Amino acid sequence: MGRREHLKDQIQAAAGRKRAPLVLKSAKVLNVFTEELMEADVAVCGGCIVGLGDYDGEVETDLAGKIICPGFIDGHIHLESSMVSPEELEQVILPHGTTAVVTDPHEIANVAGTDGIDYMLEATEGLKLDVFFMLPSCVPATGLDESGAELGAKELERYYGSGRVLGLAELMNAYGTVQGDGEILQKVCDAQAAGKLVDGHAPGLSGRELDAYVTAGVKSDHECSDAAEAIEKLRRGQWVMIRQGTAAKNLEALMPLCGAPYYQRCMFVTDDKHPGDLLTEGHIDGIIRRAVALGADPIRAVKMGSFHTAQYFGLQDRGAVAPGYRADLVVLSDLETMTVHSVYKDGVLVAEGGKTAEGGGKQTRDAAAEAGTGQVPVKCAAAQTDLREKYPQIYHSFHLEPVTPEHFRLEPDGAQVRVIWLVPGELLTEERIFPREALQGRAGAAEAGRRFAPCVDPEQDVVKMAVLERHKGTGHIGLGFLGGYGLQRGAVASSVGHDSHNLTVAGVCDEDMALAAETVRKNQGGLAVVADGKVLGELPLPIGGPMTP
Amino acid sequence: MGRREHLKDQIQAAAGRKRAPLVLKSAKVLNVFTEELMEADVAVCGGCIVGLGDYDGEVETDLAGKIICPGFIDGHIHLESSMVSPEELEQVILPHGTTAVVTDPHEIANVAGTDGIDYMLEATEGLKLDVFFMLPSCVPATGLDESGAELGAKELERYYGSGRVLGLAELMNAYGTVQGDGEILQKVCDAQAAGKLVDGHAPGLSGRELDAYVTAGVKSDHECSDAAEAIEKLRRGQWVMIRQGTAAKNLEALMPLCGAPYYQRCMFVTDDKHPGDLLTEGHIDGIIRRAVALGADPIRAVKMGSFHTAQYFGLQDRGAVAPGYRADLVVLSDLETMTVHSVYKDGVLVAEGGKTAEGGGKQTRDAAAEAGTGQVPVKCAAAQTDLREKYPQIYHSFHLEPVTPEHFRLEPDGAQVRVIWLVPGELLTEERIFPREALQGRAGAAEAGRRFAPCVDPEQDVVKMAVLERHKGTGHIGLGFLGGYGLQRGAVASSVGHDSHNLTVAGVCDEDMALAAETVRKNQGGLAVVADGKVLGELPLPIGGPMTP
Repeated sequence: MGRREHLKDQIQAAAGRKRAPLVLKSAKVLNVFTEELMEADVAVCGGCIVGLGDYDGEVETDLAGKIICPGFIDGHIHLESSMVSPEELEQVILPHGTTAVVTDPHEIANVAGTDGIDYMLEATEGLKLDVFFMLPSCVPATGLDESGAELGAKELERYYGSGRVLGLAELMNAYGTVQGDGEILQKVCDAQAAGKLVDGHAPGLSGRELDAYVTAGVKSDHECSDAAEAIEKLRRGQWVMIRQGTAAKNLEALMPLCGAPYYQRCMFVTDDKHPGDLLTEGHIDGIIRRAVALGADPIRAVKMGSFHTAQYFGLQDRGAVAPGYRADLVVLSDLETMTVHSVYKDGVLVAEGGKTAEGGGKQTRDAAAEAGTGQVPVKCAAAQTDLREKYPQIYHSFHLEPVTPEHFRLEPDGAQVRVIWLVPGELLTEERIFPREALQGRAGAAEAGRRFAPCVDPEQDVVKMAVLERHKGTGHIGLGFLGGYGLQRGAVASSVGHDSHNLTVAGVCDEDMALAAETVRKNQGGLAVVADGKVLGELPLPIGGPMTP
Repeated sequence: MGRREHLKDQIQAAAGRKRAPLVLKSAKVLNVFTEELMEADVAVCGGCIVGLGDYDGEVETDLAGKIICPGFIDGHIHLESSMVSPEELEQVILPHGTTAVVTDPHEIANVAGTDGIDYMLEATEGLKLDVFFMLPSCVPATGLDESGAELGAKELERYYGSGRVLGLAELMNAYGTVQGDGEILQKVCDAQAAGKLVDGHAPGLSGRELDAYVTAGVKSDHECSDAAEAIEKLRRGQWVMIRQGTAAKNLEALMPLCGAPYYQRCMFVTDDKHPGDLLTEGHIDGIIRRAVALGADPIRAVKMGSFHTAQYFGLQDRGAVAPGYRADLVVLSDLETMTVHSVYKDGVLVAEGGKTAEGGGKQTRDAAAEAGTGQVPVKCAAAQTDLREKYPQIYHSFHLEPVTPEHFRLEPDGAQVRVIWLVPGELLTEERIFPREALQGRAGAAEAGRRFAPCVDPEQDVVKMAVLERHKGTGHIGLGFLGGYGLQRGAVASSVGHDSHNLTVAGVCDEDMALAAETVRKNQGGLAVVADGKVLGELPLPIGGPMTP
């Protein structure tokens, strides 16, 4: 059926000249335009809402007492931080009411460059969840680390032709932008010439520097940590993404933005959210609930989790329950607990009671398409095996010789030892200086028969740390000492390491460090925990280093 | 200077590393994002705003005590109704703070089809005023009249490539749309495929028919005459254009929409506004003032006259005073009288004290460009003489044989006479039936020596009316009687006649009617007033029939 015939079919259902294939009955509709709850049936045809009112359906679902909202949208997420493939992530966040996300494949691009972007585009193409992209603007993120790739304006430009690419992702290099760096401005100009957006990332930027950054065309920010900073950015026309993820949680500090008039230009995003938090707290629904618990108006909070995000990104047919909009719907139990009862994507039930719908959404969608509800883009997730064959470089991204204890030898020869000291809950670290003789190991440890590398002193919470370049087989290793980590024995290794995702190891002795590193290397990425020569736990993350299928 | 170098130059000025070419000092900025008045200089460079704060400029203009607003935008206007060429209209509305309009060239297209659209595009291309287009969707507007052209989907499609064409204009044929008429849906699908908007026009449409109309993709309405109708449309996601023009004035009835939350999806438009009203009441500024006088919040009213219109039409760099936005600025004396003090277009002073700036904007803009403020699109209005040569069919649109009194002969032979009766202030007319013998002329008139055509009876306010097809030389004439017009002698002729703009004549005798019609015909359009064989007044409107240069 062509677009015109499809539209005519929808008009027939809207006008009541034929039964709508699906009518959700007796619920209240959360109307984002008039900010009220409306008593109305929702008629669905061809994947879209076609009417609000009194409708008869071929299928009628009674939702008495419940609230129908537009599907939630995450306006800034790095899918990689979920540590699972997009296919798996969908299983977790669809039941939480998220029907679309805007991802920045910054992590996988730092590992694999355009191959990483291509992989992500393909891995998300077949999902029920709609995945839009902002192109990683800062690969590498810093010249102080060694990434797997560099992406210039030329490498990015080719992607703007895709309807799923909405613009240039967070312009982390705020300093370069404000200085008028040519390569950055070229990336910005390319995005603008394609009619696309530029997202920002500029914690604390203020005054004339902020004016310069916004003049460059940066339309949003997700790094605000207090209301005054956010209001200064709003005044300059930036949209504020209120971030509530795993590491960074800004909602509480930004609660003043949930009121008028600020909320009209704000939206909720997660940025980076780890799998455990997704399972326990939920996704955008969890932020909405938390905002309401902190005093936000529930209707406004829902708008910040859907409508405003759609407005910012120019997603014209999303974020509202109204004729002509996609039938991406979240059914909430009520506006007090805001529990997600069920979720519809393109008019098809895809989740209920916290779980994806029985039989898998795909079948349901095929059936819906056959039943003449039409134009449901029946998507078919690219199987992991296909992707593994097509992107061997993503699934074999470790270019590192076998790691031995000798790699970690470090014997400070000065009188003092510098230690990188972690501060709980913060990204920034401190420098601490210890006299060398103070880090000689203690009697207690020696008695227990443990072997510590020189200057490692768990009683003073000082261990050894190494970062091994693993993209290009350079053999580069950074060695040093880490404090405040709490490790008493063994070693921990991880290929999750923002933003270059090299192999990071912390441990008390070189042998355990080597075993942990080797375990991750053999797994082509992941996490490993080792003690006393034994692997206590390992999680392979073979998709580029940060993700598991 | 390329786009990137231009952007770099603006960033330099924003960051304070070079003086901004223009700084507006000491005014208060009306911030549409935070809905507040901010104390801030406005720095302008390269036609755009680059900073809000404390700035030094090459040129500094002290605006102490005044308010800087974004330039006003009329979201729905038929330029033809101003009865002057776009070039002349600009002289009137720029000083009222209007820096952009969205026109539907429906009238000239009904006269001249695609030639009319081409003419309008060209006649507006060189203006300081930015003129965007919605394509006329209903030419002819009705099968009951004879227009000069028919525009199908095929004729319109070619225009969507233009950046100035924003979509398909008011879909007057709501009935056909709701019925799923193929040609209408094709026009809608073409607009949508080009990523463009579809405007609505559906007075009183409600319930399922409204759902069907909105399902078709119609995103706005400017025909609401009461708040309940408007709110029903807002609930379905339509933007409401609050119209306050010459014939139709809906503002007072729609004042409830000027409050939260409705105002967020509403904007002010004029639709049709006659030249006298433009001179006395102003344009969008006049609607804003009237809304404030009726109780609207001034900041919200300004948003409805600029920001919301820009948002609806996707004009990303308009409607706000913020970095990266065009320096289209209206300086208001204060928020009480809201008098327009001065107007800047692309950062250049174009009007002051109600008049366009001395020396003409063009020179100033050239100078600004030379002074390195850069990228001001120096526009050069297509001279009327050029257009006259290029579009002879627009300037010679009358295809009508000379008109003689014989054309108007009408001798009703029945016992009754039907009269089209005007109702003051309304578009709909009534039918009145008179006995033939009651319309024989009165003694008083005969004594005064006046000659009346048969059945014309000014004492009973009944005159003769004719509509002469004038596009294709068909010689078609519609003859009848008109009541309630108030004409006591002579005749009036006009080529302004919505929507087909044929030649309409009303008069008491055939000789005067012929003279009036001939006067308009010879002028290739216009108005003529005649009495007792003499032309008392004439206004040529040779641009298609409705407009004068």
